[in-house]
Amino acid sequence: MNRSDLFHLIKKKKSFLCVGLDSDLNKIPKHLLGTDDPVFEFNKQIIDATLPFTVAYKPNLAFYESRGIKGMISLEKTMNYLENFSNEVFTIADAKRGDIGNTSTQYAISVFDKEASGFSFDAITVAPYMGADSVQPFLAFPGKWAIVLALTSNKGSDDFQLFTDVSKTRLFERVLERTFKWGTPDNMMYVVGATKAEMLVSIRKIVPDHFLLVPGVGAQGGDLNSVAKYGLNDHCGLLVNASRSILFASAEIDFAEKAGKEAQLMQKDMEAILKNNHHI
Amino acid sequence: MNRSDLFHLIKKKKSFLCVGLDSDLNKIPKHLLGTDDPVFEFNKQIIDATLPFTVAYKPNLAFYESRGIKGMISLEKTMNYLENFSNEVFTIADAKRGDIGNTSTQYAISVFDKEASGFSFDAITVAPYMGADSVQPFLAFPGKWAIVLALTSNKGSDDFQLFTDVSKTRLFERVLERTFKWGTPDNMMYVVGATKAEMLVSIRKIVPDHFLLVPGVGAQGGDLNSVAKYGLNDHCGLLVNASRSILFASAEIDFAEKAGKEAQLMQKDMEAILKNNHHI
Repeated sequence: MNRSDLFHLIKKKKSFLCVGLDSDLNKIPKHLLGTDDPVFEFNKQIIDATLPFTVAYKPNLAFYESRGIKGMISLEKTMNYLENFSNEVFTIADAKRGDIGNTSTQYAISVFDKEASGFSFDAITVAPYMGADSVQPFLAFPGKWAIVLALTSNKGSDDFQLFTDVSKTRLFERVLERTFKWGTPDNMMYVVGATKAEMLVSIRKIVPDHFLLVPGVGAQGGDLNSVAKYGLNDHCGLLVNASRSILFASAEIDFAEKAGKEAQLMQKDMEAILKNNHHI
Repeated sequence: MNRSDLFHLIKKKKSFLCVGLDSDLNKIPKHLLGTDDPVFEFNKQIIDATLPFTVAYKPNLAFYESRGIKGMISLEKTMNYLENFSNEVFTIADAKRGDIGNTSTQYAISVFDKEASGFSFDAITVAPYMGADSVQPFLAFPGKWAIVLALTSNKGSDDFQLFTDVSKTRLFERVLERTFKWGTPDNMMYVVGATKAEMLVSIRKIVPDHFLLVPGVGAQGGDLNSVAKYGLNDHCGLLVNASRSILFASAEIDFAEKAGKEAQLMQKDMEAILKNNHHI
């Protein structure tokens, strides 16, 4: 899915919502635990309920890897199920990978090359610490995307991302300025936390055209309207992620219905934002 | 395995060699391809041949994940095989993980908690970009280690790791100074590339007591004697990794024998270094 396709999808669904599938076996409704694959069953029902309101799904690989091979089977089933809707959803492997070149190529194969690995995500999140040759291998797969960590939503983001050089450039700005040249707005996005919405002003000066993947709205306390105010561009340019607030809206038999309602509430807010900005 | 155990092992084996199991299906000897699990068969023979000369094994998870669930089965078998030698080898999941706190906890479970994930490595490599709450969850598992990226051996390491603040502190030094306080020399190590041996002087000023995991000797061009000169401490303090130079010393039927010889050559050099420094 390229940038125009994604923008088209956003306009069609009147939404720029990404649902994070942080599907923790310990948090899913108890009545699912008797099924063959509770995590897949949970994901399937969440997807069915949220699909009309959602343009992207973002499985958080940690929650699958922590269950070992069983978890990877749940993830594979989930991704195969999402293939039924490949024209109407963008898929992101939230994996925060990054290593020397030949290793990053293997990580790219692990999420992009279905024949080799069983997985064919549209995009992967990438940690930039190791520099150019750790990021570029992810950009070598036509039609696939690397989503590079810039400024994250967690408390610890201050530790290094705000480290500042003599010309007052902060590390996350350096990351934007450098990585910007390695790809295009058609194969790179950036992670920018919603809890730092005012920082979007600086960020949009460096990367006006790129999509930003924005976690932190909801459970982490970020505000959608601030993110939209500072982050929207002429292709929308935002994918706003919500995970826990949707997945665990209810822990009862009605979990999928409640998740769908929560997703719809966010979609309605997004529809208003898109209208106000003349995107729809 | 704690720091004293590791030092004891180094003295016993007269070696601080770590063998990186970057076991690429496309590079292993062709005669193995007819076996049930060629990568496991390759690893098993490599382990058998190198075990007398090696104190640590470091599977590079990318090379397993790129084969999807099949690859994870090869990794699980490899780790189960290594459990037979748990008193004489330290195991490292080379994974470069790091995410917000609750996600890093899941990544820690994926490599440390055998009951949940099937894996029980001694250590994992961790990317520091997201700060304290992305690193600390890996330190919450008693007896387990986080090995934090400081200064890596690849070309792109210049892009961000040498980013310098107004007081002339470089990012990798900031990483050392901050992360240093989050753990102890008994549950943290650092990745420092052998291609930057002279930088070990600055690094040892900040972290005199920690073990350093040093890739880049061999295929990447780093020099063992320089690493030892600047990096040794009173617990040895070094694990020097070699991957391709050992694994792919031969692509023929004699691959394990050649790998063993290559490991033994490195062990002999290490023995001389340990003797010269009165560790043995």
